[in-house]
Amino acid sequence: MLSTGFNVVGFNWMSSPAATELENIVMDWLGEMLNLPKSFLFSGNGGGVLQGTTCEAIVCTLTAARDQILKKKGRENIGKLVVYGSDQTHSALRKAAHIAGIDPNNFRAIETTKSSSFCLSPDSLQATINLDIEDGLIPLFLCTTIGTTGITAVDPIQPLCDVAKRYGVWIHIDAAYAGSACICPEFRHFLDGIEDADSFSFNAHKWFFTNLDCCCLWVRNPSALIQSLSTNPEFLRNKASDSKEVVDYKDWQITLSRRFRALKLWFVLRSYGVGNLRKFLRSHVKMAEFFEELVRSDKRFEVVAPRNFSMVCFRVSSSALFKNKKYVKGKAVSDDDEKLAEQKEEEEEEKSNEVTKNLLEKINASGKAYMTHAMVGGIYVIRFAIGASLTEDHHVMEAWKVVLRHLDAILN
Amino acid sequence: MLSTGFNVVGFNWMSSPAATELENIVMDWLGEMLNLPKSFLFSGNGGGVLQGTTCEAIVCTLTAARDQILKKKGRENIGKLVVYGSDQTHSALRKAAHIAGIDPNNFRAIETTKSSSFCLSPDSLQATINLDIEDGLIPLFLCTTIGTTGITAVDPIQPLCDVAKRYGVWIHIDAAYAGSACICPEFRHFLDGIEDADSFSFNAHKWFFTNLDCCCLWVRNPSALIQSLSTNPEFLRNKASDSKEVVDYKDWQITLSRRFRALKLWFVLRSYGVGNLRKFLRSHVKMAEFFEELVRSDKRFEVVAPRNFSMVCFRVSSSALFKNKKYVKGKAVSDDDEKLAEQKEEEEEEKSNEVTKNLLEKINASGKAYMTHAMVGGIYVIRFAIGASLTEDHHVMEAWKVVLRHLDAILN
Repeated sequence: MLSTGFNVVGFNWMSSPAATELENIVMDWLGEMLNLPKSFLFSGNGGGVLQGTTCEAIVCTLTAARDQILKKKGRENIGKLVVYGSDQTHSALRKAAHIAGIDPNNFRAIETTKSSSFCLSPDSLQATINLDIEDGLIPLFLCTTIGTTGITAVDPIQPLCDVAKRYGVWIHIDAAYAGSACICPEFRHFLDGIEDADSFSFNAHKWFFTNLDCCCLWVRNPSALIQSLSTNPEFLRNKASDSKEVVDYKDWQITLSRRFRALKLWFVLRSYGVGNLRKFLRSHVKMAEFFEELVRSDKRFEVVAPRNFSMVCFRVSSSALFKNKKYVKGKAVSDDDEKLAEQKEEEEEEKSNEVTKNLLEKINASGKAYMTHAMVGGIYVIRFAIGASLTEDHHVMEAWKVVLRHLDAILN
Repeated sequence: MLSTGFNVVGFNWMSSPAATELENIVMDWLGEMLNLPKSFLFSGNGGGVLQGTTCEAIVCTLTAARDQILKKKGRENIGKLVVYGSDQTHSALRKAAHIAGIDPNNFRAIETTKSSSFCLSPDSLQATINLDIEDGLIPLFLCTTIGTTGITAVDPIQPLCDVAKRYGVWIHIDAAYAGSACICPEFRHFLDGIEDADSFSFNAHKWFFTNLDCCCLWVRNPSALIQSLSTNPEFLRNKASDSKEVVDYKDWQITLSRRFRALKLWFVLRSYGVGNLRKFLRSHVKMAEFFEELVRSDKRFEVVAPRNFSMVCFRVSSSALFKNKKYVKGKAVSDDDEKLAEQKEEEEEEKSNEVTKNLLEKINASGKAYMTHAMVGGIYVIRFAIGASLTEDHHVMEAWKVVLRHLDAILN
């Protein structure tokens, strides 16, 4: 509220030196908490900036990447640039690529599977890049995700970087939700391989106790951003900018005007302290583990994807709905039976989706808990997420009772 | 502060119906206050949206325009699209065009001159478009300005629309600062011709007593925006969106997440009321007129551009610095004298720029007033702007005394 009330209009360093300097400082603090490679910090010739949302962060990095490559290859090649993500990558990537003028036909949402926990496979990436290069296209940008929107899957950063680097692809790591957890040493391993990435972002407004909007973006090479996004209108010219010794954040983002977001983050960091922040995050993960145990203890449910952080993805198991299976896929004795078994399984999956969806609607209609859904590999899952600073064990237990009550009602 | 405190995360209608509905309402209210054509309001199948800044508004409208035209002409023509503004247009246009993948060589900052008060001339626009078409390029987007950043010049909307319309160009009107004034009937004429424009934006955070950020954008054809900017990820699917009976603002802007900006505007509109808002705006214009009179009353100064709103652009006149002119341009008796006269005049202009710049630095260093500068047609001007709700006549008088005191010191 203070940051709103001050109504700072930070165009450049000059228009509010304090706002810029504080942002430099908190971004380095936060980068150190995350144990980011020095090359992402101001103290190591990289740097961080507060954007509104991940959408903006990706528009900016993608534009910078695009311009770097078009400078080498010629502008007429804009129609050949290819952007890579997985079918679990946030829709922000597709939208950002579209805004930046990338041909929608050159957007690759590489398929993931349940068997690999819906993570982007380096082999699939390699195969996709190979095909594109054969077609005369130019690999441009890869967005990897730590904690996907749907089910908090974690892409394997290091092997993906190993593939992408060979082609000079700009590698962005989107850790919008799960990045926060990485301030705890026991979760930091998810970031392994970040040394080879070009940019990294997470949203303090998701799971870091900060009000919307506050997306933290770090880049290893700020001048790539600046070369793409700088403007130098006369009315903003000033000695500080001309000296090139200050950071003019207008050249790191889409807009000219900017608010004093650093103050929000400063308050969060200073009022909680890193110790308390870790305590919060760990307690959320613990509560999610507790909920996961409850789900696993009831055979009518299935945990659909690994719980990496504080979100549990579950559904009503098809085995709970169809107790006496006559045909089992892969175990049928004749081809006809096998076909029937496949058909049956499809029907059972559909039924499971339908009941799970119905259950979610009932839970939310109760007003006692609010959960959301995702659709992964044809499976409808309920997402139970913990992230508020006031949530306690007993809330989790109550939520679980709401789930049980409504499933009982549906099944009876 | 309330809008910050609520921490509403409006993705779509469903995630906060109140935030969306209130935004629909205040945008129609404000549109009616501005006497916008019905076709720009929700009540007339257009609609308004609150963006952060003009930069975002232009990225969105330009992307929509780009996609409309590429759909007809084919994506391979992205390198042929041309964007038009004047040399007075805000740098946001160039940046937005760049982000949207428009070739920087196809950006036209059409020259304006002092003789036409630095307004974009329809003839110049026509000539520029003609040349581009001859070169096989495709006119895409025109940004006209009501109240340019440098000197609050007003482009002639109707004649410019008459030219641009012939080529199917998307016409945006950027009234970032001066749009506010148009809620007063006596200033509404500046918007004449808006019927033929495609989009119109002004910043409530400039001269409309609202905290940063709050850019009001209206479009005549929301579906053009939606077709370019919509995403439909599974986790956001809901019955309300599927019904197509609600507005999902995520499809009208760059980002997915959005804050509850409508509340800020609602408070401004409801707490002041249109009568008081007009009174404020008129009093600011009156104070600027008063300052302008003071400047004109002193022969050592020159008002450089017409004062259309509440900003006065002035400089130290070269005649004040060179009282006994020996050579006068155009009146010399020989060619040599004429050349000498031209050279002299150039020197005098430079000297005037230098003294004016020096004066501005002294004024701002005094801490008693803060003014800014612009450079138009080679002329360095000081911009004196009134826009705060607490400014009164005596402040203007005091500012003028600061100006006088420092000029006296410089000239002595």
